[in-house]
Parts: sequence; C-alpha cells; structure tokens
Amino acid sequence: MKKKIAITIGDPAGVGPEIVIKALINHPEIYESAIPVVFGHRKILEREAKNCGIEFPYQLITGLDQIKNNRPSNIYIYEPVPLLAIPESGRISGEAGKLAFEYIRAATHMAMKKQVDSIATAPISKEAMRIGQIPYLDHTDILTKLTDSRDTMTLFVTKKLWVFFYSRHIAFKDISASLDTHKIVDTLRVCAQYLEKIGIKNPKLALASLNPHSGESGMFGQEEIEILIPAVQDAQKSGISVEGPISADSVFHLAKEGLYDAVLSLYHDQGHIATKTYDFYHTISLTMGLPFLRTSVDHGTAMDMAGKNKANEISMVEAIKAAAKYAW
Amino acid sequence: MKKKIAITIGDPAGVGPEIVIKALINHPEIYESAIPVVFGHRKILEREAKNCGIEFPYQLITGLDQIKNNRPSNIYIYEPVPLLAIPESGRISGEAGKLAFEYIRAATHMAMKKQVDSIATAPISKEAMRIGQIPYLDHTDILTKLTDSRDTMTLFVTKKLWVFFYSRHIAFKDISASLDTHKIVDTLRVCAQYLEKIGIKNPKLALASLNPHSGESGMFGQEEIEILIPAVQDAQKSGISVEGPISADSVFHLAKEGLYDAVLSLYHDQGHIATKTYDFYHTISLTMGLPFLRTSVDHGTAMDMAGKNKANEISMVEAIKAAAKYAW
Repeated sequence: MKKKIAITIGDPAGVGPEIVIKALINHPEIYESAIPVVFGHRKILEREAKNCGIEFPYQLITGLDQIKNNRPSNIYIYEPVPLLAIPESGRISGEAGKLAFEYIRAATHMAMKKQVDSIATAPISKEAMRIGQIPYLDHTDILTKLTDSRDTMTLFVTKKLWVFFYSRHIAFKDISASLDTHKIVDTLRVCAQYLEKIGIKNPKLALASLNPHSGESGMFGQEEIEILIPAVQDAQKSGISVEGPISADSVFHLAKEGLYDAVLSLYHDQGHIATKTYDFYHTISLTMGLPFLRTSVDHGTAMDMAGKNKANEISMVEAIKAAAKYAW
Repeated sequence: MKKKIAITIGDPAGVGPEIVIKALINHPEIYESAIPVVFGHRKILEREAKNCGIEFPYQLITGLDQIKNNRPSNIYIYEPVPLLAIPESGRISGEAGKLAFEYIRAATHMAMKKQVDSIATAPISKEAMRIGQIPYLDHTDILTKLTDSRDTMTLFVTKKLWVFFYSRHIAFKDISASLDTHKIVDTLRVCAQYLEKIGIKNPKLALASLNPHSGESGMFGQEEIEILIPAVQDAQKSGISVEGPISADSVFHLAKEGLYDAVLSLYHDQGHIATKTYDFYHTISLTMGLPFLRTSVDHGTAMDMAGKNKANEISMVEAIKAAAKYAW
C-alpha cells in the first residue's frame, strides 16, 4: 500500500522549496510508492516554481482526510499557519526560521496521530531558528523533544552503502578516548534493532577499525586489540550478526558490494567520507529512534544558491522514496 | 610517442601473473600508448594463462633492443634470472619472494639506464621476501634504496580523484600531534612539484580538514585554527595554489567533480576511505620522488585467490595506462 509522506519544505529562504518542487514534478515515479503532502506555503512554492520555469498544479488542503486521489501532477499542500510575508530568497531571517519550525511541528503532530506514515525533510537554518527565537537547535532536537523520544540515531544511506555512527560532533583528538567496549556492543545492538524495524531481517553488520590496516596486530595503535575485537566478540556472543573490526579502507567497499547491511563507523568523518565521496547526491539520512521514520537530504539550506534554479533535487527524491519504502 | 613500460609480475605465487596476463590480453587499448615488457618468467605466466583459459603468444627477449614491433597479442617477456622451480600458487615461499625481488631489481636497473620509461608493478609479499632473506621491506623500500632516492611520496589516483598523504602508517591517536604548519607547507610544495613533474600545469590543491565540519570555528577541535589555516595561508603566500582546510566529507567529492587536481589528506584512512570507497578497482598508486615513475595496483598478493582465475585485472590495467600517460 502507498504510504502518506509529509514533506517539509525547510527554510523558505533556502533551496528547500525548490528541491521539493523539482522532486515532485520531475520524478513522477515517487507516486508509485508514496502519497506526498507538502508542508509549506503555496506562495513560496509558486515563486520557486516560477524561478525554475516549472508548471505547478496544486491543491490546498486543511486536513489529511481531504486527500482523494494521487495524481503525479497534483501536489497537495498543507499550510499550518497563515503566511504574513514571503521571506526573501537567500536571506537568513527569524521569520523564515519560524515558518520552517511550524512546518516540522505540524508534520510531527500528524505523524504522531498516524495521519502520515513518515516525514521527509528539506534543510533548515539553525541560525534562522535562533534569530526567530525557536527554542530548538536542529531537526533532530525538534523531533526528539516534540515526540518525547530519547536515543535517536542517524543512518546514512547511499545506495547499498548504509552507515551508522558511533560518535558525531566531537573533536578528532577525543575520538580514541571515546571508544568503549560496552558502549560499542550496545550501539551494535541498537543498529540491528533499527534495521529490523525498517524491514531488514537478520541484519548483518560490520564494525570499522580505527587504525590504518586495523593497526596490524598492534604495530600502529592498540584500540583494535583492547576495545574493538572484544566488542565484536561480545556482540557475537549476545547474538548480534557482526564482523570486524575491518580496515576502514575496505569495509565500506565491502558494504557497497552487498556483504553487509550496514557498517558502524567510529567517527563522523569516517562514515561521512565514505558515503559522500561514493555519491554525494544520493546520500540521505534516516533518523531512527522516533515513533515514526524521518528521512532527510544530507545538505544544508545553500542560501547562496537559493532562488536561482541551481539546486540538485536527487537527494530530496531519494529521501522521499526512502520515507515511503522504509516507513513502518 | 609510445612509452616503454616495465611490468613486474610480483610474487609468482600471488595473483600478480594472472592480472598481468589478463590486462595485456583483454585490454588491447593499452598498446595505444604503451609498449609493455613483462619482467617475469614464461613458465609462470603460461601456467596462469592456462588457468584462465587464455591464449598466450609471447616473445622472450634478453635485452630491450630486441623490441621490434608492438602487436597487442605479442607479449615481450624478460627473464632476469634462471627459473629453478615454478613456485606453487597460493603458497608463501622464500623462493617466490626472491623471484619477485629479481623482477623489480631488473626493471629498476633498466629504468635507471632509461631503457624503459616507467615501471608498473603487481603485488609482492613482504613475508615471502623476509623468508627469502631479501633485505628490503616492500616495493617503496626496494625502489628508494636501489635508486638512492630520499623522499618518496604516494599519490592515489581513482579516476579524477587524486590524493596525497601527509601521514601513513601511524597510530590514529598520534595523528593530531603529527600535524605541523611548516611540515604541511613543505608537503604541499612537494605535492605541487610532483604534479608538475607528471604534466599537470599550475596544479590546484586542496587541504583536507581534521575535525568534523572543519571544527566549526573551534567548537570541536582547534587544529584547523592553530595549524591548518595558517599552513594554507603560508602556502598561498609562497605561491602554491591551494585551498582549505575543507571539511573531509566534501573535499574529496569536490575533487571528484574536478575542482582540484589533488587533495592532501592528513592521515592514511582519510584518503584511503575516499578513494577506495569511491571505486576500489580503479584505485592505483603512483610513487613520486624516484628518478622515474612507478605505478602500482593498490591491493595485495591475495594468495587465497591465486591460480583460480578469480582476480580482477582493472587496477593493473589502470596502473599500466598511468605508467604510460604520466612517464616523463
């Protein structure tokens, strides 16, 4: 059955509205698996459609029960709040930040009521939200707090290469000290559970190494011997299907080839370099641990490109398709 | 003009002989730019050709002056020493290690005499060389010492993505402390010189960052502010065309897209993850700083696959083509 997907247009001054329109108009195959509902404002979307020279047939709705059909060229729009003024393209403003927040709040609200199956989000500006006095940091912060969730986790998806992260925004020199056998086992367990949740049966994981060539038996670095090998052994004993630690310069290649359902990378850049160098435009992000699935493009608002018909919508297309494919 | 390329078959017990034969027989376009001369033994190559079901027309030569024509199906073989016994496929032995070394020694000798323009090497086994009491560690060690060179440097090439390495086989937790502004400037200068040497005019470099998001103005990590930004500024002042530091999750993507001729990565896995996840089979290695160019496949002897017609020759093909294209 087709899934209803809430698509938030992100910051109205960024490239979000443009990539949402391009995704829905230029990629009608989206409608094979999804019934998209855009959370945004008609006037903002119309401006971007005009900038891109795109015909834009829409239907405003005030509730999800008004969805009657699902034609590729008929875009449902839900406007959660009145629009007082159209934010200028490319300019960070508190008003734009507030609107971006309202789209997410409304989509979250409907997802909690199961009126939509999942959410696909276009990029927002932290700075605009701060100026607009929105008391949340970013998407994950908003979603976690509005849904009263605890441990959310990011999964990067680039075609067949799927990557989880053991750590994210910490200084490089603190990475080694952040590694802990028990915490890695717990993380591997959660990764496996999240994969099961989105329909991957008996998921097979790989743990990336920290040191070059996995440290070559301790020649350069002890973390594999002291922390990572015991973690994999403990995880295996507890029934998790995981291999490793595997040298970081081959584990992502092996996952690409289909040997693993996902890799647990140890630090931000390890997984980011792999996915984004492999295919920048096809990389999307899935937020796990919420009551519903949220997918996202993996780039920012690109204010400098906004309103110029320059943005590439592929990541938005992939995010919408994944929201439909993996919603539970 | 076509370049004469010495191709060493590597350890006779590994996949080297197989990928050399497959490269030369299955990829006749190699002959458009190269005159290949295989440094190995006919009987070893014949065995592998038979394993692969490949017809193998050859011509033994005892000197490079005997090269008269250059037909794609006629493979010149130079046997540097007598073959006492054919090493068994897949088994590490001192005899195989000694032969692998003799092929490299002979090729190096001829490259020094300018009888060949460059060398493309198949993989050798450090272990086999050690058992065979060869007093060198690996290819780079042999080549550096036989040619009396000092600072050699590795350049990874994966299609348009070219990557140098500031450090290689050091423990992960020592990477941050290894960074030094002056040393980075010196390395950038050498990178630029090496690129000029292989024909890239006014090369444009990028320096990768260490911390996620380049540390976000010091929020996670100080190395960008204290070491990397000053290094790029100093390098620019001294006339080197370099940008950065650029977040590691976008710099390799940008280089792939053609914005930079090469990226200086700060540590082994940073550059390895980028190139090998992008395209494992097309990644080759160029050794710079020798009197001649040496190119290489970027995988090992794969003893477990040897003699079974299982090895992928693409990296060998790319190494031979690069040896011809960039020889000076």
